[in-house]
Amino acid sequence: MRALLISLLASSTLIGCSETLTPPEKEASSTPAKSAEYQRSPEVDRLIKAALAGTQAYDITESLTTEVGPRVGGSPEEAKAREWAVAKFKEIGLQNVRIEPFTMPYWERGIETAAIVSPNPQQLYITSLGGSVATPEGGIEAELAYFPTFEDLKNAPEGGLEGKIVFISGRMKKAPDGAGYGPANQKRREGATEAAKRGAVAVVIRSVGTDSHRFPHTGMMRYADGVKKIPIAALSAPDADQLERTLSRGGEVTVKMEMTPAWRGERESGNVIGEIIGSEKPDEIVLVSGHLDSWDLGTGAIDDGAGIGISAGAARVIIESGLKPKRTLRVVAFGAEEVGLLGGFAYVAAHKDTDLDNHVLATESDFGAGPAYEIKSGVKSGVSVIRAMGQAMGLPFSDMPTNGGPDIGPMSRQGVPTMRWQQDGTDYFDLHHTPDDTFDKIDKDEIQQNVAAFATMMWMASEADTNFRGDE
Amino acid sequence: MRALLISLLASSTLIGCSETLTPPEKEASSTPAKSAEYQRSPEVDRLIKAALAGTQAYDITESLTTEVGPRVGGSPEEAKAREWAVAKFKEIGLQNVRIEPFTMPYWERGIETAAIVSPNPQQLYITSLGGSVATPEGGIEAELAYFPTFEDLKNAPEGGLEGKIVFISGRMKKAPDGAGYGPANQKRREGATEAAKRGAVAVVIRSVGTDSHRFPHTGMMRYADGVKKIPIAALSAPDADQLERTLSRGGEVTVKMEMTPAWRGERESGNVIGEIIGSEKPDEIVLVSGHLDSWDLGTGAIDDGAGIGISAGAARVIIESGLKPKRTLRVVAFGAEEVGLLGGFAYVAAHKDTDLDNHVLATESDFGAGPAYEIKSGVKSGVSVIRAMGQAMGLPFSDMPTNGGPDIGPMSRQGVPTMRWQQDGTDYFDLHHTPDDTFDKIDKDEIQQNVAAFATMMWMASEADTNFRGDE
Repeated sequence: MRALLISLLASSTLIGCSETLTPPEKEASSTPAKSAEYQRSPEVDRLIKAALAGTQAYDITESLTTEVGPRVGGSPEEAKAREWAVAKFKEIGLQNVRIEPFTMPYWERGIETAAIVSPNPQQLYITSLGGSVATPEGGIEAELAYFPTFEDLKNAPEGGLEGKIVFISGRMKKAPDGAGYGPANQKRREGATEAAKRGAVAVVIRSVGTDSHRFPHTGMMRYADGVKKIPIAALSAPDADQLERTLSRGGEVTVKMEMTPAWRGERESGNVIGEIIGSEKPDEIVLVSGHLDSWDLGTGAIDDGAGIGISAGAARVIIESGLKPKRTLRVVAFGAEEVGLLGGFAYVAAHKDTDLDNHVLATESDFGAGPAYEIKSGVKSGVSVIRAMGQAMGLPFSDMPTNGGPDIGPMSRQGVPTMRWQQDGTDYFDLHHTPDDTFDKIDKDEIQQNVAAFATMMWMASEADTNFRGDE
Repeated sequence: MRALLISLLASSTLIGCSETLTPPEKEASSTPAKSAEYQRSPEVDRLIKAALAGTQAYDITESLTTEVGPRVGGSPEEAKAREWAVAKFKEIGLQNVRIEPFTMPYWERGIETAAIVSPNPQQLYITSLGGSVATPEGGIEAELAYFPTFEDLKNAPEGGLEGKIVFISGRMKKAPDGAGYGPANQKRREGATEAAKRGAVAVVIRSVGTDSHRFPHTGMMRYADGVKKIPIAALSAPDADQLERTLSRGGEVTVKMEMTPAWRGERESGNVIGEIIGSEKPDEIVLVSGHLDSWDLGTGAIDDGAGIGISAGAARVIIESGLKPKRTLRVVAFGAEEVGLLGGFAYVAAHKDTDLDNHVLATESDFGAGPAYEIKSGVKSGVSVIRAMGQAMGLPFSDMPTNGGPDIGPMSRQGVPTMRWQQDGTDYFDLHHTPDDTFDKIDKDEIQQNVAAFATMMWMASEADTNFRGDE
């Protein structure tokens, strides 16, 4: 299916008719215009073909993951990634390449080990959640208190878990749009707080992920004010299974865990920006982006080297085409997304008094390198242009709204119009925030289909008569 | 395909005709008897149906991997596994349950870390190969010398690699029968010796495996006499890719590695034995087996909890059936297979002057829990019985000879007749010797198909008029 979609896309004859690939029920509800009559412009056709035939995003992602590798927000490695991005943006021909720095608190992983102590001593594969406090020196050894789901913990009375290590299980459902992530993620975000309220000394959760490999998935957690901070770690799915099997036998299960993460004070991060200056309306900005930071366990290929590759790769396709967009196309590599969308907030802070109101349309790629399968809108006017972008790519329009992506959220809330190519993320959470997020997981044809989509959006947004804000 | 095969098997009507499932070309070459006329006996039919409807192997494997977990030959955990096996064998109704102890040198894994130091500092995921010496304290930091394949290293002149860390890559091919393992394994077995001969200080190899996950695969290595012993570790496939991409950019690549494995002296291991005493020929032995030890990274589910589950599970099916085999059925859980087939050799040493000559037929399951797809013979007479076992299971006869399995090899060389159910191991080397070898990887229907096959072999070998040795 994926290969078919991409090969069809390369043929402008077939792809001119979006009905070819659009399920009838979606077509009926979302495309009042006669899409069968849609013909993409010669310029868009040229960009799409160049992207599908090229390796722009694939090469950029290869370069970032190989030459920099893991790059946690605020780390020396993320600083190296900024240097890499500046050099790469210049190399591909972007203008006004610059870093917009900001400072942030830096959290660093340390040692992390765990084991079943009794009844069946054996190692458990864990990883600290981002922001977790350390265990006391020498670790914590305690009886498990088991909650099949996070709801079960929240429904438990306050108190009663004194001295226990809480184990929260619960499985995440696979879905193309990652719909299972939000619900599954509650235990990661709030598990430590809810367990501490009830007297627990530490927490382990079944990883928020959809695989069954021996990789724990990290990711940021939060402590609520006024509640004791207790350490929290994720178990790989097979280790969570192992604990559940052990618990199912009845009797006390004792686990020992030791973690030494720590906050290391204020560090510098930054957003890296490069542009193609518009030929007619240089002050009006079309923004595409990904985030430059990654978690530390893998090399940040799908999360989010791919987003950097797709955004900068699409800019490269446009530069190489020789076409001159009317509006300015801005590529942003956000810093410190994983640890709290810090780059997205810093961008708004840096631009709200200057050019934020001139942002015409913004998007981000931060959902891996799977193919785009529909387009979503977050604009107040010019929806027909968003719809036409989808038609140019042979993809249906979704009625679901979007804020444009994690780092675009803050500027979206400031009124910046957004859109998003929805990527197939069915397998995204197999790899997400694990050591297994590495470059070999990226398919060249699939990532380049996203480059075609981004180049299409950039060109069509640049040429459109609307400002997408409803006030033209 | 797998599900179809197993569901067909449950129907004796369909399965009576092995042609249903046998490719024509195999049928022609391997089954001179008119297999279409084959009808399995009521006893075998009953055993097969009980196995397919049951959970005997699934439950035993669950118990071993959960209640004991990792169990390296010679370790305290392997001793615990022997206690587990004694209890489990008694629980399922085996007779004469006993441990035959032996001593062995014990190798223990320690710390193992590695990183690219330059040009792009980042962590590498490695694991020590079994038997490797440690690095000097503080580790080894040295330039890489790259060999795309083990052949390339062997073809290199002696000397010339002084002070270098040798990196041997080379990919293993997937095959149902694991045919890629032998060739790929040469670098694991001999890599350290060949590198040391040329002056190297350490070795990293691309793991002997077929997955692309961030797991290095361990496994035993050997040092040749008279050659300096240097440390050797395996890299996960994504890390080997990363090194190759880094090397492809040209320039020196420096890696640091630290490993602290050590030989810990003589320890006790042992084979655990249980029997169903034969009703008519109690001195004649049909032997089925798996190995009880595992590597330390996973919980030894496919390697070889499954083999213990299948062998003991098949015995359980026979006991539960109430059928009384004429010959003695012996289940052996071998110790210390991974570290050099020590249990297999110890068994021969313990039995060669007593009952080894009375062994009628022997086999082992040590290739995961995938379904059996053909049967192989290592007998001198009674081939028609082996062929009929396959027919009873609806599986073709293979002309390829067998020694019955790793731990059966030593007794095979002493003249013990053997056979083997060839299991589909296409994905076996995705998990083999990694942390990911865990119980969740086992499919209940597939492992129980093997129980049906083992029970068939045990019953038919017990009833057969031949002694399979060609001297009846």
